[in-house]
Amino acid sequence: MAVSGSALDRLHQHLHQTRLLGSISSALYYDQNTVMPAAGASWRGDQLALLASQLHERQSSSAYAELVAAAEGELGAEAPPEHRRNLQLLRLELERQRCLDPALVSALARAQSRGNAVWQEARANNDFSAFAPALKALIALRRQQASQLAAAEPVARSPWEILAQPFEPDISKARLEELFAPLKAELPPLIAAVASGQASVAAPSQSAEAVDLPEALQERLCAELLDSWGYDPRRCQRARSAHPFSCTLGPQDFRITTRVVPGQPLSAFLATAHEWGHSLYEQGLPRTDDHYFPWPLGEATSMGVHESQSLFWECRVGRSRAFAGRWHGRFASGLEADPWGGAPGFWRALNPLKPGLIRVEADELSYGLHIVLRYELELALLEQEMPVEELPSRWNRRMGELLGLVPASDAEGCLQDIHWAEGLFGYFPSYALGHLISAQLSAAMEQQLGPLEDLVAAGQEAALQGWLGQHVWPLGRLVNAEELVRQVTGRPLSARPFLDYLGAKVADLRGPH
Amino acid sequence: MAVSGSALDRLHQHLHQTRLLGSISSALYYDQNTVMPAAGASWRGDQLALLASQLHERQSSSAYAELVAAAEGELGAEAPPEHRRNLQLLRLELERQRCLDPALVSALARAQSRGNAVWQEARANNDFSAFAPALKALIALRRQQASQLAAAEPVARSPWEILAQPFEPDISKARLEELFAPLKAELPPLIAAVASGQASVAAPSQSAEAVDLPEALQERLCAELLDSWGYDPRRCQRARSAHPFSCTLGPQDFRITTRVVPGQPLSAFLATAHEWGHSLYEQGLPRTDDHYFPWPLGEATSMGVHESQSLFWECRVGRSRAFAGRWHGRFASGLEADPWGGAPGFWRALNPLKPGLIRVEADELSYGLHIVLRYELELALLEQEMPVEELPSRWNRRMGELLGLVPASDAEGCLQDIHWAEGLFGYFPSYALGHLISAQLSAAMEQQLGPLEDLVAAGQEAALQGWLGQHVWPLGRLVNAEELVRQVTGRPLSARPFLDYLGAKVADLRGPH
Repeated sequence: MAVSGSALDRLHQHLHQTRLLGSISSALYYDQNTVMPAAGASWRGDQLALLASQLHERQSSSAYAELVAAAEGELGAEAPPEHRRNLQLLRLELERQRCLDPALVSALARAQSRGNAVWQEARANNDFSAFAPALKALIALRRQQASQLAAAEPVARSPWEILAQPFEPDISKARLEELFAPLKAELPPLIAAVASGQASVAAPSQSAEAVDLPEALQERLCAELLDSWGYDPRRCQRARSAHPFSCTLGPQDFRITTRVVPGQPLSAFLATAHEWGHSLYEQGLPRTDDHYFPWPLGEATSMGVHESQSLFWECRVGRSRAFAGRWHGRFASGLEADPWGGAPGFWRALNPLKPGLIRVEADELSYGLHIVLRYELELALLEQEMPVEELPSRWNRRMGELLGLVPASDAEGCLQDIHWAEGLFGYFPSYALGHLISAQLSAAMEQQLGPLEDLVAAGQEAALQGWLGQHVWPLGRLVNAEELVRQVTGRPLSARPFLDYLGAKVADLRGPH
Repeated sequence: MAVSGSALDRLHQHLHQTRLLGSISSALYYDQNTVMPAAGASWRGDQLALLASQLHERQSSSAYAELVAAAEGELGAEAPPEHRRNLQLLRLELERQRCLDPALVSALARAQSRGNAVWQEARANNDFSAFAPALKALIALRRQQASQLAAAEPVARSPWEILAQPFEPDISKARLEELFAPLKAELPPLIAAVASGQASVAAPSQSAEAVDLPEALQERLCAELLDSWGYDPRRCQRARSAHPFSCTLGPQDFRITTRVVPGQPLSAFLATAHEWGHSLYEQGLPRTDDHYFPWPLGEATSMGVHESQSLFWECRVGRSRAFAGRWHGRFASGLEADPWGGAPGFWRALNPLKPGLIRVEADELSYGLHIVLRYELELALLEQEMPVEELPSRWNRRMGELLGLVPASDAEGCLQDIHWAEGLFGYFPSYALGHLISAQLSAAMEQQLGPLEDLVAAGQEAALQGWLGQHVWPLGRLVNAEELVRQVTGRPLSARPFLDYLGAKVADLRGPH
């Protein structure tokens, strides 16, 4: 390594190459989930494992550790807080990486890739037993990882907490219990109240849900939505995948995917809004002139915050009454029919408020309980010795308790999500946190800009983007999720704004139209 | 590196990782040319440069050199010829890689990626001057590469010859002159004869050429063609790109791309046949159980042979009278009209025998002259100090001399091909060699299986695939292109079979229908 320039410059060079390697993995992942033929999975797994071990080597080598130490040493009292924060985050990550056995890193990458492939097939065949061995292997490897990482944690953490850190830095089970308790207490009665009220007026929205919206029309409406929200085809690309996702392949290369779901005519449209919300956050992170891209500050601060951005566009905007009013005409004229019987019916179709089996199709009312279910089960798998074989029955039983529904098949039960298939334990709670954060940020936004319904009615989505682009996106990892919420809204994160918003929305939806 | 197993085993491990890295580059290249947004180009260039320098390091390191030497030392007199050949090819490639300055390797990768991006835009804007600086940079870098490589060549070679070796091993300018001379002598009078005969009957095929075949219909016909030729979606993937290509991303992961060209209704269909021919060869290379994939014997022996396989399916099958007879009905019924006035007219539309400006749309009669043009010009650019600025005028003048046509714009002149934009000098002659090799292999095939027209009429393409899969594909790099032709056909490669075939076809096309 050429010893020229400051330690910070040399560290920047190192991080640039690390980010190049990481983004190559993202490109392979994108290809794998959009177009790769199934038989390519094994070789792809080897490619990803090779990159993962190279990444691990770069992030844990003595040469890198010396670079970080030299940059720390160079840091004067007058250094900008951004530099200090970058180095603090790099140091924590370095300590974690150095705890990991390289053999485990590459075994994990291989198991994740294999898990993905096995899951695709198991889900298609509704065959949990085909997936169970891969899941067992992933749990064992993740437990091993947590036990290796424990030494690097600045505070004592349980295995689940350790695995959740990359997604939700500084999260704890205790804090989650605190935030989730009001959801568990208030959502079921709210759902029950809606259900009892709906019995009499269910027919119209039922038939609207069954609308057969042709695939080409869905594609066109999604494209129009993106165009109206600033999608730039020179920097963005949209594709199909089994599970919608958003990913960043470079400082000027953003991808999102969606899927058309038979029987769910509004699914692709709402998923597009959702994934675009993720992408807007990524596009707004501090990386002007690529300067920040390789540094921690150029990254999302947590998956919960990430999710708050996608949920804001999907739920607060996409499912609002004003938005339904603006888009109803396009849906009806594209379809040359109006099965919703006007804009209010279309709005109700966007907000069925009816518990369903599938998390990604869930409305705001039941979404949190889907997460509670998964959080409990992954705790059981990782920390309470629950045998993998019990997962389907435990899933189905708890689903009945929380939402009053029992899946007819594992494909629409415990096989529905990709996360565990890739060994992502500790990720799901971020989705629920996203709802809470989105609601609390929205309340702050409304205080400054006025009611969201009015802004959306006036087609002022650019103003919403402007507010987020000023207050939220540029923070990167300068603050963690809870600090971000406190800084932007002036209050600690709580479930209150979300539950208040839901209560008002339910009243509104059940009121006279 | 763990010193266990035989040297050959350890070498295999090393080559496996090298191939993983190389195939990651292929995956990035595929993404870049099918879906990557334009603004992603610069970062993608950095990614590819990083991989190229890693690849170079792996292919030239002392550790690798020691592995090769150890495997050579282990090779007993009783070793199978395949092992001997593998090591011989690895040794030659190692000597070449060790001559190269790593800085040049990564500069070249970056210039190629940049050249591609600049070319895309220059071609779209018909702006040669925007492309010229990138081309100049590529020529300078390639010259530098040739001069560094000269030391490793087993015989004295000119810069162009050195650069052509990776595409056409053992090729020389003298041998090319010998093979191209009959084309230059016999093709122009044949083209002139066709043109004079066509004047009277031109009208019908003219109107057929202008058929507007809807994109969706073209897509469907391409899909049907692939289905009938053994396309397996579990191992293959098809996409769109600006320039059709075929590439292999792993031992079980094959991709092809095509494009729909306005005003060229049969272009996508024939390009699909062409790229599928490439892919069949790749799929048939010796790599059972992935065993050979990392070894040289698992690779195509030359681009000329590769091209012979694509041209066989495009021209010998796809443009045959029998094939036109079998597919005419599907085209006409898809279109709900028959602008070709029956199968014979459709066959003539597949064989316009009319010189055009675009190489990839050229028929068999003029294709060779497109190559002569490019071969002369790249020799001039690389070895005869021709200024880059003169390329458009020299291109247009020589195009007039060889084919009697002058491009109205550089976009359909010297900017039409991607090759030079990626610094691929020495590649074009392989296309012409492909025509010669295809014709000579076809003659040998006909001696054994009977007339191709009869086999195609009976829908026996599987038999043709079987013959190629027995005699050609499994050879890999065991023999070079000329040796392959001699081994399979019993004669040295010559232009005679190709010119004889063309003469007969022209007579047939001009005869009574």
